[in-house]
Amino acid sequence: MDIAALRSAHPDHWKKATAIRTLTLDAVAAANSGHSGMPMGMADVATVLFQNHLTFDPKAPAWPDRDRFILSAGHGSMLLYALMYLTGYEDITLQQIKDFRQWGAKTAGHPEYGHARGIETTTGPLGQGIANAVGFAIAEEIQRAHWGAKIVDHHTYVIAGDGCLMEGVSQEAIGLAGMQKLGHLVVFWDNNNITIDGTVDIADITNQPARFAASGWHVQEIDGHDPVAIDAAIVAAKADPRPSMIACKTHIALGHAAQDTSKGHGALTNADQLAAAKTAYGAPLGAFEVAADVLDAWQAIGARGAQTRAAWEARFAALSPAKQAEFTRAYAGDAPKKLAATIRALKKQISESAPSVATRKSSEMTLEVINPIMAETIGGSADLTGSNNTKTRDMGVFHPDTRKGRYIYYGIREHGMAAAMNGMALHGGARAYGGTFMCFTDYARGAMRLSALMGVPVTYVMTHDSIGLGEDGPTHQPIEHLAMLRATPNMHVFRPADTVETAEAWEMALTSKTTPSVLALSRQNLPTVRKTHTAKNLTAQGGYVLADAESKRQAIIMATGSEVEIALAARDLLQADGIGTRVVSMPCWELFEEQDDSYRRKVLPAGPVRVAVEAGIRFGWDRWLFGERGKREKSGFVGMHGFGASAPAERLYQEFGITAQNVADKVKSLIK
Amino acid sequence: MDIAALRSAHPDHWKKATAIRTLTLDAVAAANSGHSGMPMGMADVATVLFQNHLTFDPKAPAWPDRDRFILSAGHGSMLLYALMYLTGYEDITLQQIKDFRQWGAKTAGHPEYGHARGIETTTGPLGQGIANAVGFAIAEEIQRAHWGAKIVDHHTYVIAGDGCLMEGVSQEAIGLAGMQKLGHLVVFWDNNNITIDGTVDIADITNQPARFAASGWHVQEIDGHDPVAIDAAIVAAKADPRPSMIACKTHIALGHAAQDTSKGHGALTNADQLAAAKTAYGAPLGAFEVAADVLDAWQAIGARGAQTRAAWEARFAALSPAKQAEFTRAYAGDAPKKLAATIRALKKQISESAPSVATRKSSEMTLEVINPIMAETIGGSADLTGSNNTKTRDMGVFHPDTRKGRYIYYGIREHGMAAAMNGMALHGGARAYGGTFMCFTDYARGAMRLSALMGVPVTYVMTHDSIGLGEDGPTHQPIEHLAMLRATPNMHVFRPADTVETAEAWEMALTSKTTPSVLALSRQNLPTVRKTHTAKNLTAQGGYVLADAESKRQAIIMATGSEVEIALAARDLLQADGIGTRVVSMPCWELFEEQDDSYRRKVLPAGPVRVAVEAGIRFGWDRWLFGERGKREKSGFVGMHGFGASAPAERLYQEFGITAQNVADKVKSLIK
Repeated sequence: MDIAALRSAHPDHWKKATAIRTLTLDAVAAANSGHSGMPMGMADVATVLFQNHLTFDPKAPAWPDRDRFILSAGHGSMLLYALMYLTGYEDITLQQIKDFRQWGAKTAGHPEYGHARGIETTTGPLGQGIANAVGFAIAEEIQRAHWGAKIVDHHTYVIAGDGCLMEGVSQEAIGLAGMQKLGHLVVFWDNNNITIDGTVDIADITNQPARFAASGWHVQEIDGHDPVAIDAAIVAAKADPRPSMIACKTHIALGHAAQDTSKGHGALTNADQLAAAKTAYGAPLGAFEVAADVLDAWQAIGARGAQTRAAWEARFAALSPAKQAEFTRAYAGDAPKKLAATIRALKKQISESAPSVATRKSSEMTLEVINPIMAETIGGSADLTGSNNTKTRDMGVFHPDTRKGRYIYYGIREHGMAAAMNGMALHGGARAYGGTFMCFTDYARGAMRLSALMGVPVTYVMTHDSIGLGEDGPTHQPIEHLAMLRATPNMHVFRPADTVETAEAWEMALTSKTTPSVLALSRQNLPTVRKTHTAKNLTAQGGYVLADAESKRQAIIMATGSEVEIALAARDLLQADGIGTRVVSMPCWELFEEQDDSYRRKVLPAGPVRVAVEAGIRFGWDRWLFGERGKREKSGFVGMHGFGASAPAERLYQEFGITAQNVADKVKSLIK
Repeated sequence: MDIAALRSAHPDHWKKATAIRTLTLDAVAAANSGHSGMPMGMADVATVLFQNHLTFDPKAPAWPDRDRFILSAGHGSMLLYALMYLTGYEDITLQQIKDFRQWGAKTAGHPEYGHARGIETTTGPLGQGIANAVGFAIAEEIQRAHWGAKIVDHHTYVIAGDGCLMEGVSQEAIGLAGMQKLGHLVVFWDNNNITIDGTVDIADITNQPARFAASGWHVQEIDGHDPVAIDAAIVAAKADPRPSMIACKTHIALGHAAQDTSKGHGALTNADQLAAAKTAYGAPLGAFEVAADVLDAWQAIGARGAQTRAAWEARFAALSPAKQAEFTRAYAGDAPKKLAATIRALKKQISESAPSVATRKSSEMTLEVINPIMAETIGGSADLTGSNNTKTRDMGVFHPDTRKGRYIYYGIREHGMAAAMNGMALHGGARAYGGTFMCFTDYARGAMRLSALMGVPVTYVMTHDSIGLGEDGPTHQPIEHLAMLRATPNMHVFRPADTVETAEAWEMALTSKTTPSVLALSRQNLPTVRKTHTAKNLTAQGGYVLADAESKRQAIIMATGSEVEIALAARDLLQADGIGTRVVSMPCWELFEEQDDSYRRKVLPAGPVRVAVEAGIRFGWDRWLFGERGKREKSGFVGMHGFGASAPAERLYQEFGITAQNVADKVKSLIK
C-alpha cells in the first residue's frame, strides 16, 4: 500500500484518520493486549461516516433520534473509543484511552454497553452487532411510523468483519433485514481478507456482495481507503430503499509492518514498528498525542450535531404534553401506570373463573390485556406463532407495507430474533418479546447471554417447556435448559404454574429495567392453582407458600410450573394419610434468592423433609433441598435424569415417574 | 396441482411415491400427531434418489461405504421411516410405522440416531442435518484420500427445508462446504414456500440458489415432482466437482386438501380428507396398506445394493490384514492399543519435568503424541488455531488440494464446526475434535446438545476457560458455562489442573464410545501439580485426593483446573497454621458421580468443613458441598458471583477474590 499516495491525495482526511490509527497503536501497546489492525484498516470509513453522515451529539449520547453506530467487529474497540474521545464524548477521556483494558476502565477489551454513554451495544461475540442492528432498524421503522419522521428518523450504521459474516447469526440477520426492506440500515463490511488463522480463503470463498444481494440488499464495492468513494457509497446507501451493504476493500493494520497479515489482527506492540508506522503516516508524535489542529477538526465534527439535536428538541416540544410524556415513558423503560391495575384485574378474573389452560395460552391472555396499553411492545416468534401464542389481536404485522405493525414473523431464526430483540431494547422506546420452543434457547444462547450481560429487559417466551411437549421427542424436550438459564447471571427465569402466576411473571418482566426475563411455559393444560385472588404479586417473591400443611408440618414439596399441580395432588395424598404437607411454588429462583433470609426461612423452615418436583434435571435444586443452616434436612427430587422420549405427554410423565404418587412415596420414604 | 396428470405421466414412479404418501398420512393420523406435508411433498425426490442413485443395503445398514441419506428436515420423519420400511430395513417394521411417535417405538417423532439401524443422525432441530452432512462429506473425502476410492467412495445426500436454510448454522455449513469443494455432497432443498407461520416470504425473500452459488456451490432448479428432472439433476450433481444444491419446487401435502398451506405442514388427521387424498392418488387402500406390486417394487430397490456391497467386501478383503484391522478398529471407535502406553509415557515425562504451561498447551502436547498413532483423528478450530493449540505438527491441512490433511480451518463457525464434528463421528472411522474459546460454546450449543443426545464421542477443546482469559473481558469469559455443560446429560466435562490431568482427560475422551467430552482448558500457565507419576488414570475417577491433610483432617478444599493451584496454596497456608487440609481435584464431576458410594465417601468423608474454589459460579457445586448423608458439613464457595471484567488476569483473580488467602480465610471462618 502506498501510504504516501494516500496521505497526499486527501491530506485533511488523512490526518483525521491517522489520529484513530495512532491512538489505537498507542493504547494497544500500553495495554500490551488488544487488536490493532481493524481500527487501522477501517479508520478511513469511520472518519468519513462520522464527519459527513452520522447524526450524533457527544454531549447528548442518549438523544433518541441520533443515528446509531454499531461496531459489530467489537475486537476493534479502539476504533470506537478513539472516535468517542476525538469527538468529545465525556465518558471517554484521554485517560480512559490510556487505561484501555485495565481494571475499572470504561474502555474494556470489547465495547461494553453501559460502561460509557455512547456505546450502543456490547459486541465482541461475532455477528451479534449486525444482528442487534437489525433490531435497532426495526425499532426505528416502527417508531417512525408511529411518531412520524419529525420525531423518529435516523439510520443505523454497522461495521462488520469477516468473522461477523461467517457466523451463522449474520445470515439470520441479513435474511430478516432484506425481507423487511430496512432502508435505514447500512452495513460496512471490512473486507480485509484476513482472519486469525490466515487469509479468509482458507475457510471461506463466499462472494459476500452476491450473498447479500440474494437476500434483497443493495450492495456496493469500494476502496475502503478512498474517502471520496466512501462518501459516495454512503450517499447511495441512504438513497436506496433497501438495506445497504458496502464492501470496503481495506488493508488490516494499514501502514504497519504487519499490514495484510494475521499478525496484524492482534496486538501490535513492537516499539520500532509502531514508530515506523507513525512516521509513514506523517505523524511521528509521542504516545497518545494528537496534533492540536487534528483534535480541533475532530471536535468540530463532534459539535456538528448539536444544531440538529436542538431542532429535534424543538419539534419534540411541539408535541402535546401527553405525547411527550408517552414518548419519554417508553424511552425511560417505565411501564404505564395502569399496568398494575390491569394485571390485578386479570388475576382476579382468573382466580374466579379458574380456567384450565396451558400457560402458553395464559401468556397470550395476559398479552391480550398488555399490548393494548403498551404501544411500545414488539412481539414475535421464530415461526411458531400459533404454538408460542405470542400474537395478540390488534398488534398488526410489521412488514414493508405495514410499518405500524408490532408483530414480527422472525422466520426460523431463534438467534437472530434474540439478537434483534436486544437491539430493539437498546434502541430505546421499545419493549421486545419473542417466542420459540424452550429447547431452542440452545440456538439463541449467544444473544441471550448478552441480554443478561447488558442488562436489557427483553422477554423470552419459551413454550413447550418440558417433556410435556410430548411426541416431538427428546430433540424438542428441554431437560437441562432451566438449569442453564438459572445458571446465567442476571436472568429471571419464570416458570409459572397457572394463569395467575403467568400474569404476575409478565408484570415482573415488563417492569424490569435491567434484567431479561425468560417465561418457561407449558404446552399442556394446567389447572388454576391460585383460586384465591391476591392483589399482591406473589411471584415477585420468587417462591411462596401455595398450600400449607393442615396438620403438623412434616414435609415441604417444592415445585414449579406444570409440576405444581402434581405437588398439590401429592399433598392431597399425604394429607389423606395424615402427613402435614406444605407446597411451595417457586416460579422464580432468582427472585426468591433476593428475598431476605427471614422470608426464605419462613417459606422453607428447618425441620420438615423436602422434596422438589420438576420435569427437568436436579442440577441446581440442591441449593433449595438442603437447609440453610447447619442441620441438613432429608430431601429428595422427582424429575428427569436424562433426555426425554417421543410419546404422548401423559405417558412420558408416567414412564419417567413424575407423578403425584411418586412424590408422595418419596416423602414417605424420607419421613420413615 | 393436477394429480391425475402426475399419475399418468409416470405411473410406476407414481405408485412408489404414493406408498410414501399414504403411509405418512396413515401414521400421522394414527398418532394424531406429526408432520404429514413434507414427506408428501418430497416423496418424488426421495423415490428417484432411492431407486436410481442411493447406494445402500438395508440388510447391512452400517456398511461403511454406503451412501448417507440425511433428513435435515427431521419433522418429516415419516419420509425416512416409510423408505426404510418399504426397502426392507429390519428395524422398521410395519408395526413400527403403526407405532409412530409412541412410547418405546423406534419411529420417534423425529429421527433418533440409535433407535433403528439405518438412521444416520438425529434431526429435528433445524439446520443440524445439513451441517452434519458437511462433516459426513469431509470424513468421506479424508478417508477416500487415505484408503483409496476402492474402499471409500460414496455420496452424502441431504433433504433440507426452508427452516434448515433460514437457521444460521446452514450458512456456516454452506460456506465451509463450498470452500472445501465437497463434490460428494448433494443437498435437495424442499422449496415448498411454506413455513408454520405462513408463506416463506413473510419472513424471507432470499434467492437460495443465488446464495449457495455465492459460496461456490453448483446449483440447479427443478420441478420436484418430475421424476425425469429429478434424475437428471442428480446425475448432473454427481458429475460436478462442487457440492450441489438442487432446488426442488414442490407442493407441501401434495394432493391433500391442505396442499400448499401452513396447515399442510402439520398433522393431517381428518379421515375424509385423508380418504380423498388416497382416492386422488389412485390408491384407495386401507390404513397402512401398500399394494403388493408396489411393495415388491420397493423391495427390489432395497435389494439393489447387495451386489455393490458384496463387491466392496471383496475389495476390502483384498486389503492386508493389518489394514483391515486398522480400518475395522477405526470404524469400531476403538482406540489403538498403544494409546494407554503413550499417555502413560507422557504423564511420566511430565511428572518428572513438571513444566508450568497453560492446559491448552498441555492439550497440544498430548495431541502431539496422540495424532501420530491415531490416523482417524480430525482436528480443527473455529479460527483460533494458535490460541486453542489444536494443530499438531504432522496433521496436514484438509483443503481441496490436500485431501489427506486432517486439520480443518473451520472459519468463525462454532456451530457449524460442532455439527460437522457430529457428522464425522456418525460417519464412522473418524474421531473429531475442535476448538474455540469456551465462552463460545454458547454459539455451538445447538450441536453440542445433539452430541450428547446421540452419544457421539467428539471432543470439544474449549480453551480460555475462565476470567483467566483476562483483557478480552466479560463477553469472552465463561462464568456459567461449566454449570451449563455439567447440566447436560451424557456429557463429560473435564477441567484438568495440569498437563498430567489433561493427558488423562484426553485418554478418557479418546476411549469414550458413547459420550462426548469437553476439555475446559486454561489460557494462563499452571504448575504441574501431579509430580508423582501414577500409571493409573486418576482423572478417570472424576475426583481424587491430590494432597492429603498432614495432621488431623479439618478441611477439604475441592477445586478444578486452574484453581487447583490456588487450593494447594491455600492448603499450605492452612497447614502452616496447623489446620489439616485435604485438597481434592475434581476434573470431571460426571465420572466422580459414577464412582461407587464408598469411593466418593473416601474422597469426601463426613466431618471436615468443605470449601470449593472454581472461577465460575457456584451453581451445581452444592451437590458436593453438602455431605452425602444426614449431617450437613459446614461449607463455603470461592468463585464468581456474576459476569467478569476486562483487565489482566492476575488483577481479575485478585478483584474477584479468588485467591489462596481467601480460600484459607473461608476455611478458618467455617472451622471457628
